[in-house]
Amino acid sequence: MSKLSVTIEMIRAAAERLAPHLVTTPVLEHPALNKQVRGRVFLKCENLQRVGAFKFRGAYNKISQVDPKAYPGGVVASSSGNHAQGVAAAATLCGLKSAIVMPKDAPPIKVARTKAFGGEVVPYDREREDRDAIARKLCEERKAIFVPPFDDPDVIAGQGTAGLELMAEAARRGVKLDAVLINVSGGGLASGIAVAVKDASPATDVWTVEPAGFDDFARSLASGKPEKNSRLSGSICDALMAESPGKHTLAIGSALMKGGVSVTDDEVRDAMRFAFEELKLVAEPGGAASLAAILTGKVPVEGRAVAALISGGNADPAQFAKIITRAV
Amino acid sequence: MSKLSVTIEMIRAAAERLAPHLVTTPVLEHPALNKQVRGRVFLKCENLQRVGAFKFRGAYNKISQVDPKAYPGGVVASSSGNHAQGVAAAATLCGLKSAIVMPKDAPPIKVARTKAFGGEVVPYDREREDRDAIARKLCEERKAIFVPPFDDPDVIAGQGTAGLELMAEAARRGVKLDAVLINVSGGGLASGIAVAVKDASPATDVWTVEPAGFDDFARSLASGKPEKNSRLSGSICDALMAESPGKHTLAIGSALMKGGVSVTDDEVRDAMRFAFEELKLVAEPGGAASLAAILTGKVPVEGRAVAALISGGNADPAQFAKIITRAV
Repeated sequence: MSKLSVTIEMIRAAAERLAPHLVTTPVLEHPALNKQVRGRVFLKCENLQRVGAFKFRGAYNKISQVDPKAYPGGVVASSSGNHAQGVAAAATLCGLKSAIVMPKDAPPIKVARTKAFGGEVVPYDREREDRDAIARKLCEERKAIFVPPFDDPDVIAGQGTAGLELMAEAARRGVKLDAVLINVSGGGLASGIAVAVKDASPATDVWTVEPAGFDDFARSLASGKPEKNSRLSGSICDALMAESPGKHTLAIGSALMKGGVSVTDDEVRDAMRFAFEELKLVAEPGGAASLAAILTGKVPVEGRAVAALISGGNADPAQFAKIITRAV
Repeated sequence: MSKLSVTIEMIRAAAERLAPHLVTTPVLEHPALNKQVRGRVFLKCENLQRVGAFKFRGAYNKISQVDPKAYPGGVVASSSGNHAQGVAAAATLCGLKSAIVMPKDAPPIKVARTKAFGGEVVPYDREREDRDAIARKLCEERKAIFVPPFDDPDVIAGQGTAGLELMAEAARRGVKLDAVLINVSGGGLASGIAVAVKDASPATDVWTVEPAGFDDFARSLASGKPEKNSRLSGSICDALMAESPGKHTLAIGSALMKGGVSVTDDEVRDAMRFAFEELKLVAEPGGAASLAAILTGKVPVEGRAVAALISGGNADPAQFAKIITRAV
């Protein structure tokens, strides 16, 4: 096996960079959840992270290493979701400008939040324009550097710090985890956490969780090569819609992960309701996928100790209201 | 000053009793909140506690000391809210029966949750029946012991364990708290926490927070004698509607607390929305009162370090949905 592009040392270095600015998010073990699944479940609550999602970790680890003299224009990213907010917040903290290429039809709340974190929003037309071309042009014109959403060793190492914290907390509580479940889109969070988990506990299985019908990562792990989703929209989990795994993330996944499972929209809604009713946590659809996998037994939990990432909480209020009142 | 009826030793003993069953709830410091108030705010998240509120602490501390031979009928309580759930859950863990006297018009979700935690629900008519008489009769008939909602040294000591954890966490982070704000109804949580806070840090001010128009505790602290609310309903904060302070809780409050502030229903709704949008936490109205006091500057926060209790998260889904979608 060739050396992976992200090492535990890179994740430890990222943790040091992040320390002054991070919310060290809690690992919640809740009796109501344990009772429901007849096992022990540890939820790493990245919905409680700065900007409401884990994305701040990778963005800050990347951006804090940018030399402002080499990139006087700061950073550029393209995202309609949590990466946009993470990049904007991290750049502002580092004293850099940020321009985020966002679709014109992005939810107003996400546009507003990205601006509130100090980002300049550059709108584009999904139908007619090429967002990658726009981002490249911005980088050239402004002497700015592009921050990839997932397939970048520094971004992956940053996301991996959540795994470092999870494993430290498990050790502190004397818990040997049988498995860790991670919501996966392009795989930045999942691969970073896999490196941290396997370093601390080689016997712990790492599983990805993604929306049914959009299980490119699971299929790629199974086939050993990058598989694509046939559709680009149509799941409630808007944060988990990457078309295919990254080069780095799939290489790490293939080396370290057990496999992937998927969950339906209804299972995700049930998990969001469970988080609201029993855990008192706000999870966005993509953030609740791994909890859904646990509640539905996609990965065995009974009599075992299993961790899952609640990866984000930026739920749309109208959608959240419908889900908790069982209107959908 | 005469000796108070709850000592730090009683709270430490309660913490030992509770340890195997408690969620050691996180103390969340969130950049979005700090930025908003230009200070440092530490939220002790008792909404993430077992049963969704701090009430489990006091109930378990009391009930775990009950001798089942002396009280073969177990425990009795009367409550329409979180105390009901706390008592039911604690009694079940202790292998005791529990009967909870609840109004016939209590929210179905609270009745269902109390039953789910193993409690027998004894309905009564608010208009025509005397719940205290019903509870007394049940105790006599069944050889059961009554668990008071707040004015009992063992209950207060149990609630105080939340303060012990808060101060330990503040010390671990090297934070000297200027003030601690606690939602108050009868005062069990507030007085227990006051004992723990003042033991660890005599210079830290302890404030109570209650609904505007229902500020019996603040007025009692000011006058030095138990004051009553003129109304028994009419606030969104259904968990903070005790008519007047208890004997024990007021004595402790008078000795240790700085004073009380109050918040309007609209201020509470804003705080619940802030918790949803920025913190990704579900707070019930009464649980969000101290956060409302912080967001509205009822107690000075700018440039200071202040802690507040999110005391419960058992929000009614329909009401919560209206609040987050700004329908109210």
